[in-house]
Amino acid sequence: LRDHLLKKFYAGDVLAASRLMTTVERGGPEAEAVLGALFPKVGRSYRVGITGSSGSGKSTLIDALTGRYRGEGLTVGVVAEDPTSPFTGGAILGDRIRMTKAAGDTGVFIRSVASRGSESGFSALADELADVLDAFGRDLILLETIGVGQLEHNIRFSAQTTVVVFTPEGGDDVQNLKSGLMEIGNVFVVNKSDRPTADRFATDLSATLDLRYNGAAWIPPVIPTIAHREGGVDVLKEAIADHRRHLEANGHLEQKRLEGLRNRVRRLTNEKLGGFFWGNSYIQKRFDGIFKEVASGDLSPYEAARKLAESLTIGGERDQ
Amino acid sequence: LRDHLLKKFYAGDVLAASRLMTTVERGGPEAEAVLGALFPKVGRSYRVGITGSSGSGKSTLIDALTGRYRGEGLTVGVVAEDPTSPFTGGAILGDRIRMTKAAGDTGVFIRSVASRGSESGFSALADELADVLDAFGRDLILLETIGVGQLEHNIRFSAQTTVVVFTPEGGDDVQNLKSGLMEIGNVFVVNKSDRPTADRFATDLSATLDLRYNGAAWIPPVIPTIAHREGGVDVLKEAIADHRRHLEANGHLEQKRLEGLRNRVRRLTNEKLGGFFWGNSYIQKRFDGIFKEVASGDLSPYEAARKLAESLTIGGERDQ
Repeated sequence: LRDHLLKKFYAGDVLAASRLMTTVERGGPEAEAVLGALFPKVGRSYRVGITGSSGSGKSTLIDALTGRYRGEGLTVGVVAEDPTSPFTGGAILGDRIRMTKAAGDTGVFIRSVASRGSESGFSALADELADVLDAFGRDLILLETIGVGQLEHNIRFSAQTTVVVFTPEGGDDVQNLKSGLMEIGNVFVVNKSDRPTADRFATDLSATLDLRYNGAAWIPPVIPTIAHREGGVDVLKEAIADHRRHLEANGHLEQKRLEGLRNRVRRLTNEKLGGFFWGNSYIQKRFDGIFKEVASGDLSPYEAARKLAESLTIGGERDQ
Repeated sequence: LRDHLLKKFYAGDVLAASRLMTTVERGGPEAEAVLGALFPKVGRSYRVGITGSSGSGKSTLIDALTGRYRGEGLTVGVVAEDPTSPFTGGAILGDRIRMTKAAGDTGVFIRSVASRGSESGFSALADELADVLDAFGRDLILLETIGVGQLEHNIRFSAQTTVVVFTPEGGDDVQNLKSGLMEIGNVFVVNKSDRPTADRFATDLSATLDLRYNGAAWIPPVIPTIAHREGGVDVLKEAIADHRRHLEANGHLEQKRLEGLRNRVRRLTNEKLGGFFWGNSYIQKRFDGIFKEVASGDLSPYEAARKLAESLTIGGERDQ
């Protein structure tokens, strides 16, 4: 079944791609088998992360960008984060519904992923889904995520270029920007810049970035754009292309690729370590015994953890 | 030195408490030694988590609550999250400066903690600092954190009662609330409820919670409060006391205590496992060798992780 699906997938069957993505979303050994099989085909797409708060106009921007890339004959894949509604248990589809221009065009593949409270879990999955789209042969992959304040540090994906979208509200000023947003952006967009305060926000942001990246080979540009007008989107597309050329010229693309792979191997190994350790029946028994002492106050959690971790041996013998 | 500090600490020396908290913040073996030594004295405080977005008026509310508790002769400790400014590298002290009523009162101990991008790291540290305040004999510990959207799932602390503070803006409605917020709140506050839309927001929130917790023993109350007026704060204090009585009556307090301890032992064990594994020289060599194959595309990250994790042995022999 898997081989049959992969054959159709490599032949460009959109339904097969969709089914493989569902398999990946489910996780477990079958997801690993699929991703392992696709791995040699991964690495030809260019990945652009687009992050911003809910309502910042990311989706409209992505729709417009997608249109531009399609106009050049490039194929596009989109992996988009859908915040899960706490009320219905389902995803909030508002943003998705707006992305209609691409409907019916097989050169655009849009996948939304419900994020259920774990930002790091979402970005790991988004990477894996991007791998599927990459192996599927998409030229551009747009990874859309909702910026949530402090956490942008963790939303690294494997994007080569990261675009941060701001919508300045009345009271917002650059000094109050959440930590982390400055670190991850390669290109900044001040969206809905028809609002009166946006100009000052963009100017301040630009000045701050110039100061921060003073002397660096890449100073992130600030693009005042208006999602519904078209001029800003061309400037954004050009800025993404500029950043790509910058990375290529400096060998940073390969460096980013290796860094991403290294992080992934580490993450996957940690998951397996945890699964192996906590799934071990000896550890389970030992945990129960040790935890009783913690619960009664006879053993601190720190000593308990040390005792549990001491059950571990590496490569046949411990070396520390 | 540690014993001397602990002696002063148990005698109620505020400076000693502050220095022990600094040690805990630094982490490492000395932090573990301090926390291990305090562990038998931990467990007498009541911990209240207070979460809400930046600017929701949490700090003013905490200031007012603290005043009420002090009025009853209770001692209070506050552990507050300070988002780190990306510009200065320092914490944004705006909120802290507002908390001035308590200045000079040794019955109130306020500690702010810079959060540098890791929400789970912050909540682990907040728990540990709360342990210090707990062993110090504080009656009430208020854990203030900035709600950042999707992530509230992870902001569990060891708080027995969690208060979620909303400030409805013009466009906000209950249907668009971020996932997770509903799950963690035991008491909800609609702050700055003098704004015109706040009444409807509070009514909707109340109706939604009634529906969601229909038949449950505790239906989270919604308190329309105005941080600068005083009436709402008394209602909030009473709601926290109600929830505490509810937990005590149902044996849930002990259950929460054990759950918190279990999570902590697991987290600490995972940290030690990771440190032991990645710090092992055999693993480091093996990682380098295996990663070369991944980088060249000969091995998928999944197989690489499996190979690395297979270096692990538990209790002298593998059982799976």
